[in-house]
Amino acid sequence: MQIIKTVKEVQDISRWFRGECKSIGLVPTMGALHEGHLSLVRRSIGENDRTIVSIFVNPAQFGPNEDLQKYPRDTEGDLSKLSELQADVVFMPETEEMYPEGFSTSIDIGPIGKLLCGASRPGHFNAVATVVAKFLNIAIPHRMYLGQKDFQQTVVIKKMARELNFDTNIIVSPTVRENDGLAMSSRNAYLSGEERKASSILYKALKLGQEIIMSNGLDDLSAVKKEMEALIRSEPLAKIDYVKVVDPYNLEPVQRVLFAAVICVAVRIGNTRLIDNIIIEKN
Amino acid sequence: MQIIKTVKEVQDISRWFRGECKSIGLVPTMGALHEGHLSLVRRSIGENDRTIVSIFVNPAQFGPNEDLQKYPRDTEGDLSKLSELQADVVFMPETEEMYPEGFSTSIDIGPIGKLLCGASRPGHFNAVATVVAKFLNIAIPHRMYLGQKDFQQTVVIKKMARELNFDTNIIVSPTVRENDGLAMSSRNAYLSGEERKASSILYKALKLGQEIIMSNGLDDLSAVKKEMEALIRSEPLAKIDYVKVVDPYNLEPVQRVLFAAVICVAVRIGNTRLIDNIIIEKN
Repeated sequence: MQIIKTVKEVQDISRWFRGECKSIGLVPTMGALHEGHLSLVRRSIGENDRTIVSIFVNPAQFGPNEDLQKYPRDTEGDLSKLSELQADVVFMPETEEMYPEGFSTSIDIGPIGKLLCGASRPGHFNAVATVVAKFLNIAIPHRMYLGQKDFQQTVVIKKMARELNFDTNIIVSPTVRENDGLAMSSRNAYLSGEERKASSILYKALKLGQEIIMSNGLDDLSAVKKEMEALIRSEPLAKIDYVKVVDPYNLEPVQRVLFAAVICVAVRIGNTRLIDNIIIEKN
Repeated sequence: MQIIKTVKEVQDISRWFRGECKSIGLVPTMGALHEGHLSLVRRSIGENDRTIVSIFVNPAQFGPNEDLQKYPRDTEGDLSKLSELQADVVFMPETEEMYPEGFSTSIDIGPIGKLLCGASRPGHFNAVATVVAKFLNIAIPHRMYLGQKDFQQTVVIKKMARELNFDTNIIVSPTVRENDGLAMSSRNAYLSGEERKASSILYKALKLGQEIIMSNGLDDLSAVKKEMEALIRSEPLAKIDYVKVVDPYNLEPVQRVLFAAVICVAVRIGNTRLIDNIIIEKN
């Protein structure tokens, strides 16, 4: 496994892979790797000749009052996990390598970046789109792997890649969960024991929403939001940011499910903001 | 010579070229090809195994009061010229192919897009950066060729490509001029006979600026702007938009030439806005 710190070396090695007719999978991460990340790495290794994993805590996507400084970091543990899975390349750039002095280019994804989590995280999704565009040009992958847990992120990145004509297939893999349903997330490390127990309320609410839709039918979503919110409020440590049923393509709220819908939730458990979602598909 | 209208076909053919280890040159144009464009195409053909020329009048980079509707178009003449030079691929997409319904992604190049021509053309350089990023992902060229006449455009595109890590070498070729020094431009077609004669004032002013710098020395640019402006004002049909001596990297005004400087002018001749520039290099 090669550990690379510079853009140029990754581009050189990627060109070399392509010259050898090897397919390339990219798994972009912010490190502190958990089973969710590792499932993406395993899938990429299974579907491509070469797998590049990037580890970069992107300062640009953190707001001024967000958790950039305390965001969990575990380089040693990450490298040991990736080495065990036999990833081919780990790209770990310093901030200055990604954003040299004078850097001023950004990608504006448009109104979709202001919905859902974008409402409370201004600029976040533009910064995500920008850094991912960079990673696509650095690793030049045939396929890129993202986790469904960050649903809006997957929609934003697919839109950016489609509209800027990146020639990379973007693959979204199912959320990996703890036994009680909590979606795996590096931020789960922030939770105290009591908070950790309380945090299972997100998945319980999503399952409740799914059940209501299944029993009431796809044309009547009126009760979903209200009942989910009532359930989440029954958990004293939980504070709702949003509960929404949205179109999976444009993230606009829907009143009924035509082909598919996504129930998205964002909830604060203590000081930790958690998100999760579940896709409802019409059979 | 293949004429292609869809993104996917160009990406397929470009991948095919790369698979055959052929180097690819891209010359992005808005058509109405003149000797300036053709010099880029010839250079690309000389330096690459395959040359792709795009012809696309990009609506996004025209302001609401600009000349999108009347911008010169000559598809038949363009194709005949390119066929004679033996370009390999001409990409001529419809607007909907480049900007499908719902399109909302744009690249913001930062403050550099608001200097010089950007001051009177808000949004122009962001739209240029966006469409060129798309062309880079569509043609996936090893080299892209731009004309020096649009100096700010070359700086913006190089910055965009560098900061988003596009793996393409961007090559700027010298401005091709008419006998009286007027820089070739598709917009010269707008000029009446009298205006055409008057338009040689841009190059005369640039040469004057260059002479002043050469005689006064690189440390004293104080007289350049004033004397150039006086000369341009002596032409009754000319109206100055700007005359500036700037740093070729960040386009900020300079007081003396350290390594190099660019004298940039934008002048209206009647209703036609013309630009030109000359690079002063320290030997």
